[in-house]
Amino acid sequence: MLDESKLAIHQATTFEKWSFDEAVEGYARHGVQAMGVWRDKLQEFGVQRGARLLRETGMTVSDYSPAGLLTPLEDLSFQQRLDDNRRIIDEAAEIGAQCVVLISGGLDDDSRDIERARGQAKEGLAALIPHAKAAGVAIGLEPLHPMLCASRSVLTSLEMTNDWCDELADDDTLGVVIDVYHVWWEPHLARDIARAACRIRALHVCDWLQDTRDLRLDRGMMGDGVIDIPAIRRMVEAAGYTGFREVEVFSERDWWRRDPDEVVQIVKQRYQSFV
Amino acid sequence: MLDESKLAIHQATTFEKWSFDEAVEGYARHGVQAMGVWRDKLQEFGVQRGARLLRETGMTVSDYSPAGLLTPLEDLSFQQRLDDNRRIIDEAAEIGAQCVVLISGGLDDDSRDIERARGQAKEGLAALIPHAKAAGVAIGLEPLHPMLCASRSVLTSLEMTNDWCDELADDDTLGVVIDVYHVWWEPHLARDIARAACRIRALHVCDWLQDTRDLRLDRGMMGDGVIDIPAIRRMVEAAGYTGFREVEVFSERDWWRRDPDEVVQIVKQRYQSFV
Repeated sequence: MLDESKLAIHQATTFEKWSFDEAVEGYARHGVQAMGVWRDKLQEFGVQRGARLLRETGMTVSDYSPAGLLTPLEDLSFQQRLDDNRRIIDEAAEIGAQCVVLISGGLDDDSRDIERARGQAKEGLAALIPHAKAAGVAIGLEPLHPMLCASRSVLTSLEMTNDWCDELADDDTLGVVIDVYHVWWEPHLARDIARAACRIRALHVCDWLQDTRDLRLDRGMMGDGVIDIPAIRRMVEAAGYTGFREVEVFSERDWWRRDPDEVVQIVKQRYQSFV
Repeated sequence: MLDESKLAIHQATTFEKWSFDEAVEGYARHGVQAMGVWRDKLQEFGVQRGARLLRETGMTVSDYSPAGLLTPLEDLSFQQRLDDNRRIIDEAAEIGAQCVVLISGGLDDDSRDIERARGQAKEGLAALIPHAKAAGVAIGLEPLHPMLCASRSVLTSLEMTNDWCDELADDDTLGVVIDVYHVWWEPHLARDIARAACRIRALHVCDWLQDTRDLRLDRGMMGDGVIDIPAIRRMVEAAGYTGFREVEVFSERDWWRRDPDEVVQIVKQRYQSFV
């Protein structure tokens, strides 16, 4: 049996039918003690009010997302993105999130220069670290699957994520988020998870469907796809990670359409069998 | 100006509207001197007859595909796949193809063991090399984009492709196919192209659309997406490659619906501006 107190659910899993407060109360009703919070949902409800509800419910916030998207080449937009990220960090502090999940951003429509975009994302990340440190908020840098390279993340591998963390050299504030969906195909997965070691701030799980139909919103529930999730979880835990196993299923065609109470029940079953 | 005699078109680019002979004659009519041949199309027309038409038209076959798909774990199917690949190699010899394009295969529905699938693909490849050598046909091993890892190719990077070529150590017969669509996001692209060096057997070009809607059949025409194609072409040519630049656009929603003569004309324009 997996320890159920380490199960977290990201509210992206019940995105379509549950608002922020419905998710907090819904997960709690099923005995789930931690959740990943999605910024738009929290803002709809109100950040202060949300922080209070989380405290009153006794719900731990495993992470807060999305932060980042630091690749607009136009200087004004870049500064605006940095300012917005500082607000995200402050919000994360207010709800006591264990980390903010930061994704690099993709390619500007006008630029085909991937190296420049990578450089800029790293520069933006460096600029945010002092603010995060002052706020006492950890940043979890998350590489995304290369199919999202153009739209969301020029950071396309765990090796590059480790390299950036080495360069920025602030392990107290900067860590790594590992989502099995984004890294399961990687040629050197075991090596790069071991290298991430105590930098790992969060572990996300879901599954990759053989007949995936959408690049972002067609993830599978654990057990329905091809990822050997327990193998990856064991690698992450062997590297020293002891935190939550957070279920995050963006699924427009299937799970978002179902009754969220049913979804949470199935998450709990699949957590035992396939995580 | 790019040398137009190095332009090849893969018939996947006019897949929907042109049969094998229509493609041979259509490309020739526009002065295109080389083409990539798709197996199903050739078989519909007849291999011997197709070989004759190619000779009579003076059309060079830049490559023949797809070969491979060597990952079924059930032993009988694996042997059948090897036999089928030997026939593919013989067909490639008959039409004088400069290489067969081999893709590894994805994950079996029943297995989540990616390392085992990789091992089996490599074993199958090793078993095919003697037949290819005897037939005088080069094998071009092509890594595919990781979004096709489950369905088509557990070989997900150029680095791993180079590793397999090193292990199998037969550069006369075994080489590498580089498609910008599959590798443009790679963190060590320049390094791994330089390492492939004289092993490079073919170069495929198309573009990655920001709003990609399908994992396999939604490629863009050069210039419509985010890939810096000239930069990659220059890396490949600096590594010693002097062969064709083959345009391969699988595009169900757009280019397949257009008049193929118009498509070929646009390919020729875009070749000059964006390759």
